[in-house]
Amino acid sequence: MEKQPIENIRHSLAHVMAAAVQDLYPGVKFGMGPAIDNGFYYDFDLPEGRKIVPEDLAAIENKMREILASGASFEREDIQIGQAEKVFNGQKYKLEIAADLKAGGEEKVSIYRTGEFVDLCKGPHVVSAKELPADAFKLTKIAGAYWKGSEKNAMLTRIYAAAFANKKELEEYLKQQEEAEKRDHRKLGKELDLFVTSDLVGKGLPLLTPKGSIIRQILERFIVDEETRRGYSRTYTPDLAKVDLYKKSGHWDHYKENMYPPITVDGEDYVLRPMCCPHQFMIYNSRPHSYRELPIRYAEIAKLYRKEQSGELSGLIRVMSFSLVDAHIVCRPDQVEEEFARVIDLIQYVMKTLGIKDYWYRFSKWDPANKEGKYVNDPAAWEKTEASMKKIIDSMKLEYIEAENEAAFYGPKLDVQLRNVNGKEDTAFTVQIDFSMPNSFDMTYIDQEGKAQRPMVIHRSSIGCIERTMAFLIEQYAGAFPVWLSPVQAKILPVSEKHGEYARKLAEELMRQDVRVELDDSNETVGNKIRKAVAEKSPYVLVIGDKEIESGKLSVRDRGSRDTREIGKEEFVKEIKDQFPGKGA
Amino acid sequence: MEKQPIENIRHSLAHVMAAAVQDLYPGVKFGMGPAIDNGFYYDFDLPEGRKIVPEDLAAIENKMREILASGASFEREDIQIGQAEKVFNGQKYKLEIAADLKAGGEEKVSIYRTGEFVDLCKGPHVVSAKELPADAFKLTKIAGAYWKGSEKNAMLTRIYAAAFANKKELEEYLKQQEEAEKRDHRKLGKELDLFVTSDLVGKGLPLLTPKGSIIRQILERFIVDEETRRGYSRTYTPDLAKVDLYKKSGHWDHYKENMYPPITVDGEDYVLRPMCCPHQFMIYNSRPHSYRELPIRYAEIAKLYRKEQSGELSGLIRVMSFSLVDAHIVCRPDQVEEEFARVIDLIQYVMKTLGIKDYWYRFSKWDPANKEGKYVNDPAAWEKTEASMKKIIDSMKLEYIEAENEAAFYGPKLDVQLRNVNGKEDTAFTVQIDFSMPNSFDMTYIDQEGKAQRPMVIHRSSIGCIERTMAFLIEQYAGAFPVWLSPVQAKILPVSEKHGEYARKLAEELMRQDVRVELDDSNETVGNKIRKAVAEKSPYVLVIGDKEIESGKLSVRDRGSRDTREIGKEEFVKEIKDQFPGKGA
Repeated sequence: MEKQPIENIRHSLAHVMAAAVQDLYPGVKFGMGPAIDNGFYYDFDLPEGRKIVPEDLAAIENKMREILASGASFEREDIQIGQAEKVFNGQKYKLEIAADLKAGGEEKVSIYRTGEFVDLCKGPHVVSAKELPADAFKLTKIAGAYWKGSEKNAMLTRIYAAAFANKKELEEYLKQQEEAEKRDHRKLGKELDLFVTSDLVGKGLPLLTPKGSIIRQILERFIVDEETRRGYSRTYTPDLAKVDLYKKSGHWDHYKENMYPPITVDGEDYVLRPMCCPHQFMIYNSRPHSYRELPIRYAEIAKLYRKEQSGELSGLIRVMSFSLVDAHIVCRPDQVEEEFARVIDLIQYVMKTLGIKDYWYRFSKWDPANKEGKYVNDPAAWEKTEASMKKIIDSMKLEYIEAENEAAFYGPKLDVQLRNVNGKEDTAFTVQIDFSMPNSFDMTYIDQEGKAQRPMVIHRSSIGCIERTMAFLIEQYAGAFPVWLSPVQAKILPVSEKHGEYARKLAEELMRQDVRVELDDSNETVGNKIRKAVAEKSPYVLVIGDKEIESGKLSVRDRGSRDTREIGKEEFVKEIKDQFPGKGA
Repeated sequence: MEKQPIENIRHSLAHVMAAAVQDLYPGVKFGMGPAIDNGFYYDFDLPEGRKIVPEDLAAIENKMREILASGASFEREDIQIGQAEKVFNGQKYKLEIAADLKAGGEEKVSIYRTGEFVDLCKGPHVVSAKELPADAFKLTKIAGAYWKGSEKNAMLTRIYAAAFANKKELEEYLKQQEEAEKRDHRKLGKELDLFVTSDLVGKGLPLLTPKGSIIRQILERFIVDEETRRGYSRTYTPDLAKVDLYKKSGHWDHYKENMYPPITVDGEDYVLRPMCCPHQFMIYNSRPHSYRELPIRYAEIAKLYRKEQSGELSGLIRVMSFSLVDAHIVCRPDQVEEEFARVIDLIQYVMKTLGIKDYWYRFSKWDPANKEGKYVNDPAAWEKTEASMKKIIDSMKLEYIEAENEAAFYGPKLDVQLRNVNGKEDTAFTVQIDFSMPNSFDMTYIDQEGKAQRPMVIHRSSIGCIERTMAFLIEQYAGAFPVWLSPVQAKILPVSEKHGEYARKLAEELMRQDVRVELDDSNETVGNKIRKAVAEKSPYVLVIGDKEIESGKLSVRDRGSRDTREIGKEEFVKEIKDQFPGKGA
């Protein structure tokens, strides 16, 4: 038997699933059923009064295996499009496709028969169901899907399946999916009480709870302090501005579709900002600058507003507003290279500190064919800036891939790409060279000869969007945060009521030393309390009983361990503090 | 001579000013000319081609003094309103007033003559100009003012004057005004480069420069750390939400006129939040709470958006958006009193730390006559809550004044009132008891018997709006901030180029120890550098010359002193750190 391409296997299995559903749900009408990444799906319009629930999937799988075992053949036939009416009698979606094809000028169409099931399909398919692996697919999910993706049409029932060439690949995939689901930041965010959403507030507008807020606050102070140490100064600029500002900056021409509609107040149009750059440029332009002052590195944790498809809003990643750890470095042309290298050094330090290892660089360029609308139309400047950026990253010996049509509208980018828990690629941080806005805003500095010169601008993020980075960290650590980031660092569990008073005082003592502790003085058994603390992924669990009160020492159970160790209070506090980035031995 | 009330003096001087202007600008038409706080003004419609500039004020003053010296009389006459046409021939504004009075049913009006000048005026006035002090008034300002305050009408020229009973009072007032002007946060904000505004960004949307941002960041960290120490937890919630949220909270019914218009995204209406409370309540409501958990103190530095008259937008106080250091304490009824007292204790600590001494409390109640619209219409709840708030503040022995019609829409407030640099009263911080929103949002906790109970909510700010507090501090300290708040703590001035290298290293060394220094290595003389540092109000100036390099010690010139003192580096760093609130001996 010839080895079939995996798309063919997946697509053929979709037919087999359709045949099985036809057998179990007579009268079903068929939508589309393509192969997709990792598997396939098929859309069904079920007969009046019938529906498919997850419990039904096993029966459909069994019926599919019967069909595979029977060695059903896939028979292709080319028919005149006029015959479709007869072949697909009552199959209104297939007939609609046939009509669309006819309207498009097609005269003949191919159909495939598998037992009783017949599909309007280009193929190719396997010859016999025997070629399909019976142990390498699994029906995974039921979802509603509008016919042709439009909410004006009927809602069909879509069954998703995973399908691979062999059982081992399927199992690996399912295991990875299970792991990804366990790590999903939306699920963990709820379980660990890190953030919540509210229908009244709106989708894509998460609210950070006290525990989630601790993580955010630590990340913010960490990066602000690190940036300060590296010579950045800070700004606080408003989250909205007159539309005029974005007309001048170029956003209104090149980025408007990502912006929210303006608000009119006393005859002026204001709009929520999609980027912070023009705001910081207003500060730069508020007074003259000498060449001696440069580089000036303006940093801000900037709340930004960019439109997302409202259907896609969820969790901490697809949001209506987010907080970018942003900066704009205004420098002389002779300083660009060094400043660029300093930014990369900062990003690499941040990655290391956050424990991010699986990342790579992407050099994102414009698309000369797409110069209208998406990009500032200045081919010469694009070429020059991309060439100089390439020179810089080559000289830094960074390994990178190149990507067309991924630049900012004002210049090329170096993106830091991550792989998220679902295996998908995401841009975490970027460094951009801007040749456009310094001109638009007529930014200048006075050189040694007293002449006005145009500075260069580097746009960069160091730790990305706080919300997205939090989501990434939740998934990377599966909620078991490193000690310095843990909302609760130590859980204190008195064995019984008589140890409660001592435990309470210990909690206060540790809190005074800025250790984040939580006391569990509920009436549960100590065993249950430990189980709860473990589920909450507390890095340290301190059980307080007679022994600990007598010795004045602490019995610590480390996360991931079933043993306890004895340690003095001071030593324990030091152990925790030493784990803060940049601290310790 | 009988002593005249000051209003009469001011009002009579307004007539004298009008008479003087009539003399100097024949053909002038007169608007209104009342007595006001501290003086008077008069509005003039000048003849075609004439205008009044500040340099003209002295001539008008001189003419006024001539009239006073001449002993001109103020002659009252009551006339039939029909005669006004004749008396005020060509004085269209006076005729308009006469017509208005007639339409209002008046039959007679009084007029006053002072020399050639005649005014339509109720009086009373002095009998003779001799009764008016010639040395106790001063024309201070020229401004444009629409007739009857409406921009649809003509723009008149308004001349303001200060006027008092005697020369001493005038001089005191002018001195105070001069001081207030020097301290004006808008003026100092520009001079000390703390914030800027931009026409492109919009009025009322200030941008904090790096120096202003340092002050803000210090204030934020100071208050966040203090609140954390006092048992507050933090939240980060979005700056906008669906209008639905504010309908449920009551804002849409009672506070809508202060809110910006909604923006519509994918068919949903979102609005910039005027308050943070409903957002934090969504976090509270996201899971059940036991009586043991309360009080829960949710704190947030919340960006809020409240509409101001766009004509009034300026500086850091009249802004389109501001950041409130906000918190909502959800507690059991038996905890309200203690929580209220804790809030007052925190506020008093903040006041002391910020050096604010001139403040008082205002108990702000609703107005039962104004129950439609402005307040939640539940008289019984208002009475009960106001009574219990009164009991609490009485038991705390706080001195306070009472004010009707100053409550929040959801409950009474205790306001902390300050006097700003212009002598005007301002609300800095507030504590509020909310009887309304816990019901609207059906907030509950589970009591000892397992039954759901309604908690109480205290709304409070601890350090107020960051922007407003910054403005207040700029004015209070006239830009000479205490060391812990100073954007630059020490200015380092090398005497000549050969001391530059040592000075640069010293700057780096101090920065590494988190001292905020600025190096002035310009080619200026050390004298000029010192003058500049003094103008910038730097708390410490370090001059680096041969002596300092040799000794390894520092020569410090303290702000306000003309002497220098010698101090070791370590000692100097400690001196600075010890001035941070809560630090030091």
